[in-house]
Amino acid sequence: MLEELKQIVYEANMDLPKYGLVTFTWGNVSAIDREKGYFVIKPSGVDYDKLKPEDMVVMDLEGNKVEGKYNPSSDTATHLELYKAFPNIGGVVHTHSPWATSWAQAGRGIPCYGTTHADYMYGEIPCARCLEGKEFDEYEKNTGLLIVETFKEKDYEAVPAVLCKNHGPFTWGKNAHEAVHNAVVLEEVAKMAARCEMINPEVKPAPQDLQDKHYYRKHGANAYYGQN
Amino acid sequence: MLEELKQIVYEANMDLPKYGLVTFTWGNVSAIDREKGYFVIKPSGVDYDKLKPEDMVVMDLEGNKVEGKYNPSSDTATHLELYKAFPNIGGVVHTHSPWATSWAQAGRGIPCYGTTHADYMYGEIPCARCLEGKEFDEYEKNTGLLIVETFKEKDYEAVPAVLCKNHGPFTWGKNAHEAVHNAVVLEEVAKMAARCEMINPEVKPAPQDLQDKHYYRKHGANAYYGQN
Amino acid sequence: MLEELKQIVYEANMDLPKYGLVTFTWGNVSAIDREKGYFVIKPSGVDYDKLKPEDMVVMDLEGNKVEGKYNPSSDTATHLELYKAFPNIGGVVHTHSPWATSWAQAGRGIPCYGTTHADYMYGEIPCARCLEGKEFDEYEKNTGLLIVETFKEKDYEAVPAVLCKNHGPFTWGKNAHEAVHNAVVLEEVAKMAARCEMINPEVKPAPQDLQDKHYYRKHGANAYYGQN
Amino acid sequence: MLEELKQIVYEANMDLPKYGLVTFTWGNVSAIDREKGYFVIKPSGVDYDKLKPEDMVVMDLEGNKVEGKYNPSSDTATHLELYKAFPNIGGVVHTHSPWATSWAQAGRGIPCYGTTHADYMYGEIPCARCLEGKEFDEYEKNTGLLIVETFKEKDYEAVPAVLCKNHGPFTWGKNAHEAVHNAVVLEEVAKMAARCEMINPEVKPAPQDLQDKHYYRKHGANAYYGQN
Repeated sequence: MLEELKQIVYEANMDLPKYGLVTFTWGNVSAIDREKGYFVIKPSGVDYDKLKPEDMVVMDLEGNKVEGKYNPSSDTATHLELYKAFPNIGGVVHTHSPWATSWAQAGRGIPCYGTTHADYMYGEIPCARCLEGKEFDEYEKNTGLLIVETFKEKDYEAVPAVLCKNHGPFTWGKNAHEAVHNAVVLEEVAKMAARCEMINPEVKPAPQDLQDKHYYRKHGANAYYGQN
Repeated sequence: MLEELKQIVYEANMDLPKYGLVTFTWGNVSAIDREKGYFVIKPSGVDYDKLKPEDMVVMDLEGNKVEGKYNPSSDTATHLELYKAFPNIGGVVHTHSPWATSWAQAGRGIPCYGTTHADYMYGEIPCARCLEGKEFDEYEKNTGLLIVETFKEKDYEAVPAVLCKNHGPFTWGKNAHEAVHNAVVLEEVAKMAARCEMINPEVKPAPQDLQDKHYYRKHGANAYYGQN
Repeated sequence: MLEELKQIVYEANMDLPKYGLVTFTWGNVSAIDREKGYFVIKPSGVDYDKLKPEDMVVMDLEGNKVEGKYNPSSDTATHLELYKAFPNIGGVVHTHSPWATSWAQAGRGIPCYGTTHADYMYGEIPCARCLEGKEFDEYEKNTGLLIVETFKEKDYEAVPAVLCKNHGPFTWGKNAHEAVHNAVVLEEVAKMAARCEMINPEVKPAPQDLQDKHYYRKHGANAYYGQN
Repeated sequence: MLEELKQIVYEANMDLPKYGLVTFTWGNVSAIDREKGYFVIKPSGVDYDKLKPEDMVVMDLEGNKVEGKYNPSSDTATHLELYKAFPNIGGVVHTHSPWATSWAQAGRGIPCYGTTHADYMYGEIPCARCLEGKEFDEYEKNTGLLIVETFKEKDYEAVPAVLCKNHGPFTWGKNAHEAVHNAVVLEEVAKMAARCEMINPEVKPAPQDLQDKHYYRKHGANAYYGQN
């Protein structure tokens, strides 16, 4: 069942340690089959070097396990809310990648300081507030709902990443591969923004017209980066 | 004698350079056989790339060498005091891993800034004071006793790590493997906490209910992370 | 056509990930055949691990593609302006290498703090201002013209590197290999300058006579470094 | 001639890139045969991946090349002065290792903040002033003489390292291997001291009795670290 998607999700998960984004099991990738209404996600707490494509867990959009011998990632309910609220995404990634997590712990969104950021994400990468009180009762679900709320007036396709305060980042994309790609970009951008502020504590975000130029060089009808 | 435990301790020691926690011989792992009352530890100053399982040294809980051609680690007396005072631990690790050591040199405990920390350690990781005066006469033993004193009103199972001021970290766990795992976690947490303060010098520790949520997601009767 | 130069440019491009200067496709190298009046450049957005020598694109100095199945790098117009204005250069490199990019985002030139810098670059590495307004209409061309303007009163052979504000670095050299070499030097120098200021916020640039001594130890008629 | 020492010096030079201490050719190791009065040093500007044992250059203590097809390292005159002034050393290392060089550029000695430092170096690692004026006429020789002057009231065996302001570090030891070992220690210590000050800007050096304890645990008649 969904063997091809399991293979894709397996490979996308294996890319996390390859790109230095995870220590131990601190990350997970999922991808959705919109037609069937199922998504495939990494099992919870299984070591990357023991992971196999057939270990991936199939879930439906009510949060029921459809297939798989393992429990799904403990963050499954967060992925689920993102798939429900963001209709154009096909993959979701969660990591504790160190620079992005440091910004999340610091409780700050990442300002757009340059074109590396602007090429992929349009404007500041927001930091969602910490959950509180009763929201912890359904922690992972409410994390997802909070991310959705954070994007109420933002374009989730133009900014495919969020920081959850005191926790870490989630990224997404049109498929699992692009979601992982965005997780790598986020970590690089987070690193350079922190160092940039160290080098110049008075630094201001990049001018808006530079942000526009670089974002639209790669996105939209007039894009001219790459081979398309 | 204790061949299986020697193999385990050997492998746990070899994990230290694998995870980037040691330069040269700056680290050691031990593990205890509680029934027999013996513990097995790395020999002192032997290069990791020459280390063999049979080089491990067997000690009793009075600090006598029971078997082994080499001298035990110079930190053996510290390990011994931890085994005596903390009845539920099975393994101890000492390293000079760079971020944790930087906090130890700075003389500060590591505040809990996020869930990466809270998933493994409950609250601040304490920094024990520096020894002084006559305490240096039995330096390694007194280092152990000082760690024990530091945990007089703390739960050593909920916080399996300590920083020794001007020195470096010790971690422990229910066995050697878990103690090494906690040493890796500590280094990641130390790195992210330092960067977090760089990004936001006014940062506050994570809210208590987030710390509770994440710690109990992985520990205790209601844990639901992983496959158990 | 220009098969040898394509091979050289291919290898120089492959050196970028080897030296840790690029993530994904965030960089490009070109080299010029001054006699023929053509230059060879990496295709746009092609993954490094799929790149082949024959994928390189041949351009003339009016910006026309002369040969190649792919689109040239989106930064081609910048390379072109540098070749036209700097007659003694044979290769150009653009990257988003993280430390140099952090300085570019910070909007600061890199002061010469020591001999590592002085051995290769004579004085501060300048940071060109950000483009603005109508300059974005021909963004890449104007980036090149702005770099040229920045060197109006500077010796482009003595300082073979520039930072473009909110963007990243360009370096050059007498051929592609030397341009890549200078990109590596720039990243090391950028890293050490940032850390140097962290260690001593009051630090001043190296004395002028030290800068002279080291630069002329390697350059000019009295050079005595190396085997020539 | 001196084939065994050439092999040793070759291997010690190859350890520099292995330990991440050099970029390109930015480092050199030498070792002396005190009986014969000759020392062996890396040739100038030869790539590490092309270096062979027979490329090493043999020098006498008047600075004459005794054997070798290449020019000796441009820093040879500095090594020479150290061999003449420090009778118990057998090897010398120069690198531009990034953390130690950042301290040198910052113009600060490295305070002893902990036992990693104290295990190898007794007290602050000094930063020699920058050369000036006529001293640049015999730059490398005067660098050596300045290091010697810096140790006029310090024990060069207890502190086997120095930073040259605006330049970088030199280390030494009883042979080439130990000199390289000390270069690795210096880089680790420099890294942790910088981060330590970042974590606690008010940090003070480690108490003197801790420094004594750790230094004498490894050095002198009562040493008990290791297998001797």
